[in-house]
Amino acid sequence: MTKLIECVPNFSEGRRPEVIEAIVGEVRKVAGVSLLDVKPDASHNRTVVTFVGSPGDVKKAAFAACAKAAELIDMEKHTGEHPRIGATDVIPFIPVKEATMEECVALADELGQEIAEKLAIPVYMYEAAAKTPARKNLPDIRKGQYEGLKEEIGKPERRPDYGPARMHPTAGATVVGARQFLIAYNINLGTSDVGIAKKIANCIREAKGGYRYVRAMGVMIEDRQVAQVTINMLDYTGTPLFRVFETVKSEAARYGVNIIGSEIVGLLPMQALLDTAEFYLRLEGFSRKQVLEDNL
Amino acid sequence: MTKLIECVPNFSEGRRPEVIEAIVGEVRKVAGVSLLDVKPDASHNRTVVTFVGSPGDVKKAAFAACAKAAELIDMEKHTGEHPRIGATDVIPFIPVKEATMEECVALADELGQEIAEKLAIPVYMYEAAAKTPARKNLPDIRKGQYEGLKEEIGKPERRPDYGPARMHPTAGATVVGARQFLIAYNINLGTSDVGIAKKIANCIREAKGGYRYVRAMGVMIEDRQVAQVTINMLDYTGTPLFRVFETVKSEAARYGVNIIGSEIVGLLPMQALLDTAEFYLRLEGFSRKQVLEDNL
Repeated sequence: MTKLIECVPNFSEGRRPEVIEAIVGEVRKVAGVSLLDVKPDASHNRTVVTFVGSPGDVKKAAFAACAKAAELIDMEKHTGEHPRIGATDVIPFIPVKEATMEECVALADELGQEIAEKLAIPVYMYEAAAKTPARKNLPDIRKGQYEGLKEEIGKPERRPDYGPARMHPTAGATVVGARQFLIAYNINLGTSDVGIAKKIANCIREAKGGYRYVRAMGVMIEDRQVAQVTINMLDYTGTPLFRVFETVKSEAARYGVNIIGSEIVGLLPMQALLDTAEFYLRLEGFSRKQVLEDNL
Repeated sequence: MTKLIECVPNFSEGRRPEVIEAIVGEVRKVAGVSLLDVKPDASHNRTVVTFVGSPGDVKKAAFAACAKAAELIDMEKHTGEHPRIGATDVIPFIPVKEATMEECVALADELGQEIAEKLAIPVYMYEAAAKTPARKNLPDIRKGQYEGLKEEIGKPERRPDYGPARMHPTAGATVVGARQFLIAYNINLGTSDVGIAKKIANCIREAKGGYRYVRAMGVMIEDRQVAQVTINMLDYTGTPLFRVFETVKSEAARYGVNIIGSEIVGLLPMQALLDTAEFYLRLEGFSRKQVLEDNL
């Protein structure tokens, strides 16, 4: 089996197609990397790029794209709705297959240093790759955005983890880190009472005493007249899908309500579904090596 | 996603390593094929070879191995415990990924004709590729084995589907066909009463009114003092894992017994576990394209 890491850099350009294409072109150039998605947003003036490959290849592609963004984007002239501090605003690495979070942290650390040294861009390490708890959360690092950080970057508490304690003249600063794959997951209830969905959301979300890696809220799906618990699974290895599903099922039963279905929005790693099958079938001694396709 | 078909030919040689290696060498030579397993059995005097690849590549490898076996194995001198009619005794094709049973039947048909025409070996088509219901089951085709078939091959009811109505002087005859992936699956019960496992096995096996694609029996796992329902899932797309698990669970509850675990023996196709996750999470509109690894 090949080791696979996903990289989802966010660039502060969502309007000029030629600039986006030039940045994405750097990713395409790396032969071992699969480009999965390019999502430009004009009002955010930001593009999210998703690619997957071996640790070495994704790092190479991420650095090349970051260098190109530094060349083509001028943060002094950037406006957009989304908070940002740099041309390459944030670069997370995500373990996808046979790779650990520790490997992603090490990779992020190498990339952070490389960006700092070769491009003279100040770099902040976040999430699993954070050097201090205060930098675990992206919004804390991004406080004041490009304009605010430019003023405060010299202060001890805002000094970057790598690189100069001054903004790059055009590219600003960059955040690099490692996090788990985020799964967008919705559970549909056999009721049109959105109040029940809201109560159940509060049972499972971390903020209200629920599961550590769960964000959730109750919403109404108007066209189906179905109340839905809409969930962000921040780390399916820490809080698995099946556990959240079973808790929602048992809390819904409290109101005499059934789960009528659930939905995965977008992509998810194979492992999240294998863990689910393993749980429900009560598998003993199961190994991913028993999956035929993983032997090819 | 690449179309993948598995091929599991059985050769009537399990004692001479150089002959086995020469046959397997023909499979290795086909670049697009992954050789998964080679299992020689000396008392059976038989070797089971497992490989996977695109339809064109597996057919090419199967033909080359069959030709080599015809060259190196002399059925006139073959002895062994396992029933057999030819040097290459049987060649099943199995859909693994993105391939249908119909494609496997068509592939088997092409290979059967090729073996008959180019090697002058009589060929019988079996299972999903059978030309008549009487040849669906392998034991019916293999009746009397090599020695018996040699006498009867001229009779109308025993004439081959392709090739001459006389045995190849050294290679005998060959059976070619298509079947589903067989999953070996055991369910362990929270009891040492093997009688309960036997009763439950009878609830799920086709022969006793159970599921169409299930063979099962109750056995005792002595070292754990655990009664086990040991199952062959002949077609997981027709009778899925989760349905068998749930039926065993509900029948066991009848005796106040729980399922303490289950085991997959050997390999299984990814899809069997995805179907399981999809069932238990009650997924709506899920597509295999949402699995990250399948986008690479």
